[in-house]
Amino acid sequence: MGDIRDAAMRIQAFVHRTPVLECRTIDRMVGARIFFKCENFQKAGAFKIRGAANAVFSLTEEEANRGVATHSSGNHAAALALAARWRGIAAHVVMPEGSSPAKQKAVAEYGASVVLCEATLEARERGLRDLVERTGAVVIHPYNDAKVIAGQGTAAMELCEEIPDLEAVLVPVGGGGLLAGTSIAVSALCPGTSVMGAEPEVADDARRSLEAGRIIPSTYPATIADGLRSSLGDLTFSIIRKHVEGILTAGEVSIAHAMRIIWERMKIVVEPSAAVPLAAVMSNPALFSGRRVGIILSGGNVDLERLPWLPRTR
Amino acid sequence: MGDIRDAAMRIQAFVHRTPVLECRTIDRMVGARIFFKCENFQKAGAFKIRGAANAVFSLTEEEANRGVATHSSGNHAAALALAARWRGIAAHVVMPEGSSPAKQKAVAEYGASVVLCEATLEARERGLRDLVERTGAVVIHPYNDAKVIAGQGTAAMELCEEIPDLEAVLVPVGGGGLLAGTSIAVSALCPGTSVMGAEPEVADDARRSLEAGRIIPSTYPATIADGLRSSLGDLTFSIIRKHVEGILTAGEVSIAHAMRIIWERMKIVVEPSAAVPLAAVMSNPALFSGRRVGIILSGGNVDLERLPWLPRTR
Repeated sequence: MGDIRDAAMRIQAFVHRTPVLECRTIDRMVGARIFFKCENFQKAGAFKIRGAANAVFSLTEEEANRGVATHSSGNHAAALALAARWRGIAAHVVMPEGSSPAKQKAVAEYGASVVLCEATLEARERGLRDLVERTGAVVIHPYNDAKVIAGQGTAAMELCEEIPDLEAVLVPVGGGGLLAGTSIAVSALCPGTSVMGAEPEVADDARRSLEAGRIIPSTYPATIADGLRSSLGDLTFSIIRKHVEGILTAGEVSIAHAMRIIWERMKIVVEPSAAVPLAAVMSNPALFSGRRVGIILSGGNVDLERLPWLPRTR
Repeated sequence: MGDIRDAAMRIQAFVHRTPVLECRTIDRMVGARIFFKCENFQKAGAFKIRGAANAVFSLTEEEANRGVATHSSGNHAAALALAARWRGIAAHVVMPEGSSPAKQKAVAEYGASVVLCEATLEARERGLRDLVERTGAVVIHPYNDAKVIAGQGTAAMELCEEIPDLEAVLVPVGGGGLLAGTSIAVSALCPGTSVMGAEPEVADDARRSLEAGRIIPSTYPATIADGLRSSLGDLTFSIIRKHVEGILTAGEVSIAHAMRIIWERMKIVVEPSAAVPLAAVMSNPALFSGRRVGIILSGGNVDLERLPWLPRTR
């Protein structure tokens, strides 16, 4: 928890303290009271800037001068590019083909150099190795990094400070950086509150990994929640095993439905990955009935031509 | 201004005090500092509930028992339906065919009875007369009503209280209820601040009316800003003539562009009518360069299948 408090101090001049919103209509629909921490309003449109900024501003001068590099399906790439610009250093990112064009554009706009690769974890890691050999840049892993995890934990820290009596906190899980940071913050600040992850049914590698007691890699699943396709890392896995009560899943149709409800009822733009926790609540109503539930809306970066409820994009 | 303060007291238990948001990226784009009053987050998704609630809660018991009726392209209808439900009385609304299905659905969900009519002002007024003859309901006009105008003025009152040193305030103008109420509030609270209306180029009846010195009726123009198709009323016209500095216009493409920028950069859902003031600022950069400008984002009720940037809906 000390790491998360340090991260909060380190990044506070750069990131927004995002609002926590409620929506009566959604509360009625799900029979629970939901507190949405709106990281879709965060700088660069997602919580990822918290971890990236903490990692970049933790580098020594010597490290920083070498620049930073990463692989990411999008939001971490944009976040790292922006954090590097703030510190005035170079950023290089490997992005899988098929990652959101809006996210690719954002990364380029923040001044990073982008290398596209095949959409597999192996290709991403190989691309990153090549890039580091060529540039000497310091790798900032999108989630399997203690500074990144501490930074991501600051969102849940703010949520717990603002809404102290939550009974459960639910966040999306891809590589596990947000879930790991959230679980550390919540178990320290509100020890009685259960922390759960939410992931797409077709990308349930985190759920299966927790059940098996070892990391089961994701095989780049075809989910609309494009931020949640990665596998857990050894660091995130060990933290999640220790602090997280369980992982819930939601089908693709219910993720699209939850996303649409958030847009229509809350009048805010969230990306599919951000809607997965609400979809999981709606798919498991008995678990949450009458309870006070915190959800981190992880991001709002979405291609406005490719919305899941438009027939031609299915 | 006393009417607006009375309205604020009367409705405060029912409506949200909506946030004022800023967006650095948009400020850089337009070279001005914009303060967005987010009535898209308002109850029933638009500022209209302010006027409707003020009118409904100003009725005598005898009047209230007769129920209320109106004609509206959508947001006033939903607002009146909701305000009537709060007071526990009947609401009847005449809506033009072609008004947004999302808005028609909202009206029905709030428990009002809906009568569809042709999409002309004459047909709407005839439909309303028939309805009142049949039901005896009290007509709450969508904008040409002193209580409605006073209610709408509460949004600008809140904006001026929160951001006291605005140099200009810009709001969309259809029938003129919001613009009239805004102009009364701003001229009372910040006498040095100029108030301007913004309307689609293809629906520029308010601009032409001000120039001509008499109301020039709108001829149900085909604009994507479906909330701005009405003509001024004698009451709104006389207030606007007195207090408003001018009316700016924006083309359909620039309205769609401004709407998209708000969605992408602010991560909030606004309807096309709400984007007209920003479109007008972007179309008249010299007028606003370096200034502090308040904009009321009038509403967020939009059909998510019919977005102006999707080719098949153009």
